[in-house]
Formats: sequence, structure tokens, C-alpha cells
Amino acid sequence: MTDRPPRFGLLLFPNITQLDLTGPYEVLARVPGAEMHLLWKDTDPVRSDTGLRILPTTALADCPDLDLLLVPGGSGVQELLADETVLAFLRSQARTVRYLVGVCTGSLVLGAAGLLKGRRAGTHWASRQFLAAFGAVPTDSRVVVDGTLFTGGGVTAGIDVALAIVAELFGEDHAKLIQLSIEYDPQPPFNAGSPVGAGEDLTARLLERMGPMLAARSAAVRAAAARLNAAQD
Amino acid sequence: MTDRPPRFGLLLFPNITQLDLTGPYEVLARVPGAEMHLLWKDTDPVRSDTGLRILPTTALADCPDLDLLLVPGGSGVQELLADETVLAFLRSQARTVRYLVGVCTGSLVLGAAGLLKGRRAGTHWASRQFLAAFGAVPTDSRVVVDGTLFTGGGVTAGIDVALAIVAELFGEDHAKLIQLSIEYDPQPPFNAGSPVGAGEDLTARLLERMGPMLAARSAAVRAAAARLNAAQD
Repeated sequence: MTDRPPRFGLLLFPNITQLDLTGPYEVLARVPGAEMHLLWKDTDPVRSDTGLRILPTTALADCPDLDLLLVPGGSGVQELLADETVLAFLRSQARTVRYLVGVCTGSLVLGAAGLLKGRRAGTHWASRQFLAAFGAVPTDSRVVVDGTLFTGGGVTAGIDVALAIVAELFGEDHAKLIQLSIEYDPQPPFNAGSPVGAGEDLTARLLERMGPMLAARSAAVRAAAARLNAAQD
Repeated sequence: MTDRPPRFGLLLFPNITQLDLTGPYEVLARVPGAEMHLLWKDTDPVRSDTGLRILPTTALADCPDLDLLLVPGGSGVQELLADETVLAFLRSQARTVRYLVGVCTGSLVLGAAGLLKGRRAGTHWASRQFLAAFGAVPTDSRVVVDGTLFTGGGVTAGIDVALAIVAELFGEDHAKLIQLSIEYDPQPPFNAGSPVGAGEDLTARLLERMGPMLAARSAAVRAAAARLNAAQD
């Protein structure tokens, strides 16, 4: 890190899954001196896919050079995959940022920006099949590290990803102090956080409920991959 | 539950630890049809103790009857312990609400409202010693259930608490579907989420850093307990 305080940017967009952002935010903001930026096109309140409204701090056009840029996921990802303003912002920041991070389906947005080619990457289990369209190597680990690219599984994996990044940037003791301060000693009441644990029946029920969203996502991924490939031919 | 959609209220206050709220929010908002209320004195943006700004949806004075009322924690708890408007709101809602929930140091606020007398309750490990002042029976479990009172350990425990509540209200399959949708299959990079796991040295370092805050909290708890006892004499 440089001498100035660490500067962390998190993309905040309509229909974000807010815990994809708020989980890592809580970890990263506890780094002493951290400067946090919640980034969107303007600074009006942004509504999550479950209705929570959060205020951005910094417009994309005003974003300073960052040490880390994190892209969360959510159903709003379908729009981002076709949003040239956002994709151009990600490409531009990727040239100078030290760490690039995708949480949940935020990884797909990094893919649409052309930033996952040949890189190992993770995403939410129900969207993992979409990574290959962007030239990524799909990986089913909860935290996937490929050089300075950190990606993770769905939603709550962002907490694990953020702790891994703090450990890499500042050392294990810093990460452990933050883990202790947020009492992150998880005890899920059920073993149902992955398709293997939840079993075939529950997984099928959830996929059926997610069906229309996943169909829209599939179409958006195909279109984004076609544009990316055309631009790079 | 009644025939109408389930109605969940979460208190949102200045210097809240935002993940105390946003973790359970993500779980509860995924209950089909859930009506979510973020409650504060007015509906202006509220700033968390790490600077995240969230918009309340509902002023305390306009709050409808709730099925569940959840109080998160954070350094702003010190102010709440002396805030008669908030404490009166909690007492009033407690008479009709089906489930009362304290996450992290939110439990202390329930205590100051006189709602923990003789009840088993949990809170953040570093504040557990404050529970007895309010007549609660301090409990070191991550999720503590005493009848319709659910309390939990620090910050991230709110996710476990919320899943336990969904299971109780709607059945295990509902909770498991939500757990799978947020891929809550946690894999913390370290065993440092509790004082036992983190060890004496790291725990002492964190407690030293938290010292001034804990001293202020101790004074606020003593004053709140004195007021509560005087009112009930």
C-alpha cells in the first residue's frame, strides 16, 4: 500500500443484492483509516432488489484512483451487462487498481468488461454456467484468488472474500481482529448453504423459482459476450 | 401468522453497525410477501458507524403493528439507552409484536426498555457483562431463544438469528431455501470469530482498541439501569 489511507470502491447499482455489498463493506471499512467509496452514476439513493435504499458517496465520473474495486451482484446485473458506461468505468479502473473483486454475480459484470479472460473466477452457484461465455475458468470455491483478482460465491461469500483480502493487504492479524470484532464465528442453523448440503429437492425448488430471472440473465450474458468478442476481434 | 403478509420492522439509528441490520434484512426480506419497515424518528438518511447511509422507510410514529421487531447494535446504542422516545416505542410495540429480536448490542436497548427481566439473552461478546444490569440472564450462545424473544451474538450472528426465526415462523424448508439463495455456507479464512478462537493476545488488543467505547457504554448502561429500576419501584 501507499502512504495515503487505503481507498476502497464498491459499485452500488439498482437492484443490487445489498448483502453482496454490505457484508464486505463492514469488513473493509474496519481497516484503520480506510476511505470508502460507494460508486454509482449519480449520488441519488439506490434501491436494492429487496427494497433497501442506500446512498452512493461518489459518482463514477468523480471516482479517484482506487486500491480496490469491488463489484457486487444481484438481479440488476442483467442491466449492467449491457451498460457501456459501467463497463468502460470498470475497464478504466482495472488499469490502475491494485485489487479487482467480484462478489456473487458481480463477477459476470467483470466478465462482460473483458476482465476475466483466462482467469479463474467464482460466482453464485446458480450462475456459474455463465462464466465461460466471458472466457473465465469457472471455479466452485467460495473464495477464488487469481493473482490480484478475487472473486467469490453467492452473497454471504463476500464476507469471506473481504477477510481474505484484508489478510493479503495488511496481514493475518488485521483480518483476525476484524473477524473478532464482527464475531464472525458462523453457526448456520442448517447445512443448506450449498446445493450439495441443501439436496436435490430444495435446489430444484429454488431453481424453479429463479427460472425467469435466470432466463433473462442467460440472454443478457449471451448478448454481452457477443459484444465483447466483436469488440476484441 | 395472520392472513396478511408478514410485517417485519428493523430499527435504524445513527451509528448503527450496519451489518447487524443488513444481514438479517437480507434473510427476512426473502420471505415471500414480506413487508419490510426500516424504522427511525424520521425518514432522513441514517449514517452507520462506518459511514454507510441508509434510508428509513417508516417513522416510529407511523409504525403499523408488526409481527417482528428487531433491534440491531452499534456504537449508537449508547445514545439509545438514554432515549425515552425509542424506549417507549419498544415497550409499546413489545405488547403486540409476535417476536422481539436483539442482534449484537441491540439486546442492551431491549434491556433498557425493561424487556429482558428474567429472560435469557445474548449480545456481542465484548458487551455481555452489561446484560445483568437489566435483569437479563447472560447467555453465551450465538443464537439465544427464550420463548418469543430471540437474541444473538455480535454483528454476523444476526444472519443465524434471522434464519432461526424464519424456520420457526414458516418451517425449516423456507429457511433452507433462503440459506441456499444467499449461499450461506460460510468458510471463514481464520478461526478468529470468538475470543476462544482468536486467543488471548488478539482479544486483548481488540479490547484495548475498544476501551474508550466500552467505558462510555458502561456508564450509559449504569445510568439506564438506574432509571429503569427507579421507574419500576
